[in-house]
Amino acid sequence: MVTVNDNYLKLKAGYLFPEIARRVKAFAEMNPDAPIIKLGIGDVTEPLPAACRIAMIKAVEDMGDRATFKGYGPEQGYAWLRDKIASHDFQARGCDIDGAEIFVSDGAKCDTGNILDIFGKDNAIAVTDPVYPVYVDTNVMVGHTGEANDAGKYEGLIYLPMTAENNFTPDLPTGKVDLIYLCFPNNPTGATASKATLKKWVDYAKANDAIIFFDAAYEAFITDPEFPHSIYEIEGAKDCAIEFRSFSKNAGFTGTRCAFTVVPKSLKAKSSDGSDVELHQLWNRRQSTKFNGVSYIIQRGAEAVYSTEGQAQIKGLIGFYLENAAIVREKLMAMGLKVYGGVNAPYVWVQTPSGVTSWDFFDKLLKEANVVGTPGSGFGAAGEGYFRISAFNSRKNIEVAMQRIAEKLKM
Amino acid sequence: MVTVNDNYLKLKAGYLFPEIARRVKAFAEMNPDAPIIKLGIGDVTEPLPAACRIAMIKAVEDMGDRATFKGYGPEQGYAWLRDKIASHDFQARGCDIDGAEIFVSDGAKCDTGNILDIFGKDNAIAVTDPVYPVYVDTNVMVGHTGEANDAGKYEGLIYLPMTAENNFTPDLPTGKVDLIYLCFPNNPTGATASKATLKKWVDYAKANDAIIFFDAAYEAFITDPEFPHSIYEIEGAKDCAIEFRSFSKNAGFTGTRCAFTVVPKSLKAKSSDGSDVELHQLWNRRQSTKFNGVSYIIQRGAEAVYSTEGQAQIKGLIGFYLENAAIVREKLMAMGLKVYGGVNAPYVWVQTPSGVTSWDFFDKLLKEANVVGTPGSGFGAAGEGYFRISAFNSRKNIEVAMQRIAEKLKM
Repeated sequence: MVTVNDNYLKLKAGYLFPEIARRVKAFAEMNPDAPIIKLGIGDVTEPLPAACRIAMIKAVEDMGDRATFKGYGPEQGYAWLRDKIASHDFQARGCDIDGAEIFVSDGAKCDTGNILDIFGKDNAIAVTDPVYPVYVDTNVMVGHTGEANDAGKYEGLIYLPMTAENNFTPDLPTGKVDLIYLCFPNNPTGATASKATLKKWVDYAKANDAIIFFDAAYEAFITDPEFPHSIYEIEGAKDCAIEFRSFSKNAGFTGTRCAFTVVPKSLKAKSSDGSDVELHQLWNRRQSTKFNGVSYIIQRGAEAVYSTEGQAQIKGLIGFYLENAAIVREKLMAMGLKVYGGVNAPYVWVQTPSGVTSWDFFDKLLKEANVVGTPGSGFGAAGEGYFRISAFNSRKNIEVAMQRIAEKLKM
Repeated sequence: MVTVNDNYLKLKAGYLFPEIARRVKAFAEMNPDAPIIKLGIGDVTEPLPAACRIAMIKAVEDMGDRATFKGYGPEQGYAWLRDKIASHDFQARGCDIDGAEIFVSDGAKCDTGNILDIFGKDNAIAVTDPVYPVYVDTNVMVGHTGEANDAGKYEGLIYLPMTAENNFTPDLPTGKVDLIYLCFPNNPTGATASKATLKKWVDYAKANDAIIFFDAAYEAFITDPEFPHSIYEIEGAKDCAIEFRSFSKNAGFTGTRCAFTVVPKSLKAKSSDGSDVELHQLWNRRQSTKFNGVSYIIQRGAEAVYSTEGQAQIKGLIGFYLENAAIVREKLMAMGLKVYGGVNAPYVWVQTPSGVTSWDFFDKLLKEANVVGTPGSGFGAAGEGYFRISAFNSRKNIEVAMQRIAEKLKM
């Protein structure tokens, strides 16, 4: 008799986004003429940069000639891409990260989930609340938690609230924690972390032999020079942090698929006999055994992000979405709503009107303005009373959605 | 203090192919002028079919226009691809498989490893010996085994020998087994399974409530109509088998990356309270949470495999590699070597001369003929005394390699 991984049965029925899709579908079926605008999922809408497209067409052509055809590539990614990433995203900012410490992958979502493969089952794990649901669900799936309570909190995880009360800067854990997920610029709240904030976390991790999983998927939206783009801008982070990055949001790769993870060679953890093990080596083994590298064609597209044209084009994309975010902020504030994020970040985090839950606000927005957003409570118990609006859309959709909200939402 | 997954430390030092790469590199450094020909890794060498390239260029262009741009796709793959797979690869052969039962992924290697995520820790697991190392290593990594012995066998796994003595047809397990890995056409032995053989396994699985992981990555090489391409050609297999497929070997996608896995909706296993759980639902949850789908561009390339032009082009590719295999077989047999496989399969499985181990033969072939193959013992203890030669190469390389072996190998 074959048994299943029972931990999956602890997962709450719907991952947030499928539940949203279900409600939108039901509404659309009842109201086939409703001109729904989706500002829910953080999915880009603007064309892929020309530099990336040109590079990918060239790469497809390479595949047509025996002399330039590419079979299996290195599981870690091609050196020409890893080195460009290291040089541009890290060394240029003073971070001592080498190309060999970069692992190219097909998604930060995959990597933040898969990273747990190389860790033991007995680590104390902290997440912020609200949080990107994948961090939590992947811990549930591998058996790091007990059951969820009614508020959706899983037994065994340590939740660090991140709300207006603490200015969206989670406090350090009171007890000892081993693995800590941090995401800045933050999904879902749009909050950013200063160097001082990150230094506090690096100091904590070093003092407690902890490791930080730093998700910097939205770093490209930082325009204010005071905020760090990488955790490795903080001294000592190389000894206590793994960083996740993606081309999804800076270069519009959500449907093209390329990301990378930095596992510094200096990073160590303990085997059960107390000896040190290099995490770089374990992750390398994991990726070599369970992954075959990203498509050559797609890696060439990602490489083009670092060309002069690519850099100019992604700057244009990011600027465009940030302008969208500014429009959302202004319009909602003008309606008297309390609004956070949306500066140095593509997400606007709205406080729902008093007494209105996140899902009530979702239904209200869908029904009255035909606009889809994401209920804050879907990201965790402390997200209750908040609502996420994504700036990833066309200018027209953003403007129409905001006008409709202003005109039709019964406040 | 962060702990690592200690199971990784049980893995033997080198995955087979890195060890080969190490020896080849060392030899090449000592003999910089040696014209090494690699027939080791099963990596394709011929250009990607034109139909796939044309479709991918069109898809890259789609990404340049807001109206046809694609962001996040379904994690399971686009319906237009899933439906074509179901119709062409299954329904056309009388298998009752629906598009919704197909999960498109970036590699069969990933899927055969990741599939363990959804199963419990207490299943009895059987692999053939020799075997594709990824099946074994991924079981070690998740803690399904104890330590390896000197022959490389891991405690806790059930090994089913597959050698000339049993005509490369493994016997059914004597005890009760829950999960069984089968690969036909076989990597590494090049053996094929008849309908009667597969029926024996399906009957065993149904009688023992077991599940078969059927790796059909090489099915396209079957030209003999008597052999089944899919395990679902056997009645009842839908209730006891998951099938893994890939575009790597039929359409030359090793560097392009696309594959798929079939998880029938009728497939069930038990939770610890004894209730039935649909595996399709668990795998769907796994993929939705830890994967973001394959690149739109690549999926369009895979779709083109099913066009009239694509089908003609992959037929040409497969025929070409099969002719290579026939040349390898003939030449080695003419030298008096015992040779298996290489018919309905791209791998030729050679018995090493009496008293010569697999690694000795590797070193001998490299030194005397400058040809790289794969030592059979690298695939398992029962592979000792065998050697794998891959037919994936240019005609010229195959011919030169065989001529050199004939002339230079000291038998």
